[in-house]
Amino acid sequence: MGEVRWLSEPEMSAWRAYIVATLRLRQRLHRELAAAHDVSLTDYEVLVCLEMAPDRRMRMSELATTMGSTKSRLSHQIARMEVAGLARRAPDPEDKRGVVAELTPGGEALLKEAAPTHVEGVRAHLIDLMTPEEQSVLARVFSRVDEHLEGLGS
Amino acid sequence: MGEVRWLSEPEMSAWRAYIVATLRLRQRLHRELAAAHDVSLTDYEVLVCLEMAPDRRMRMSELATTMGSTKSRLSHQIARMEVAGLARRAPDPEDKRGVVAELTPGGEALLKEAAPTHVEGVRAHLIDLMTPEEQSVLARVFSRVDEHLEGLGS
Repeated sequence: MGEVRWLSEPEMSAWRAYIVATLRLRQRLHRELAAAHDVSLTDYEVLVCLEMAPDRRMRMSELATTMGSTKSRLSHQIARMEVAGLARRAPDPEDKRGVVAELTPGGEALLKEAAPTHVEGVRAHLIDLMTPEEQSVLARVFSRVDEHLEGLGS
Repeated sequence: MGEVRWLSEPEMSAWRAYIVATLRLRQRLHRELAAAHDVSLTDYEVLVCLEMAPDRRMRMSELATTMGSTKSRLSHQIARMEVAGLARRAPDPEDKRGVVAELTPGGEALLKEAAPTHVEGVRAHLIDLMTPEEQSVLARVFSRVDEHLEGLGS
């Protein structure tokens, strides 16, 4: 791959602060949800994705991409959520060979119950720590990153 | 918890862009490392933490906090890394009841081999997509988040 372009000092500061704070933040949000509602952060995130989708269902492949997961990992996760009554798998109405994940009433109820805990955590540990200008930089930068990754098909 | 302070439209944009792009970015970096060096992103991150630590070892509890992991999850991960020859557990020289994780020569070799792949990914999918001003906003915001979480003891 030729000469490696190592990160400069300010680039490394940005990368390191982002990655360290993100890992810690996710762990904190996870613990708050698990303690108050016995749900993991990743299960909560699946419920949010399904709730926002048309007809509250998503193809497994599309959900895996949105969750930054793989089809195999997501498949295990949805199987566990199915047992817990939070989601269910069904044939894709638009493609008989495909499979979708659907939100169940149990998943909807949990989401409604847990949302206040999650939003308070997101505020206290991230949003309320930023100025409106900083918030808009984050929105802009990460939308750009998302479009870039979308363009790569990942 | 009283009235729930739901996110405003610009706050939601910042949060959603950040969380979606972060999940995708981590998945992309993971796939690049796994394809080229057969190592997961989280194992790679443990190796980076150990390499930067004094004497290339860290207490398990401290490593768990830095990784945004739990002691139990980290313990399983280090056990797998021990089998793969990338790290080893040892009694803490400063506290006989404590346990540290140490970098092994195998872990060091893998880190050296995989670092160029990782840094190219970090550049291509994040750092090179930002202006220097945006990089400094990220560094500032996420250092603040990290200090906040540190202050909470998490």
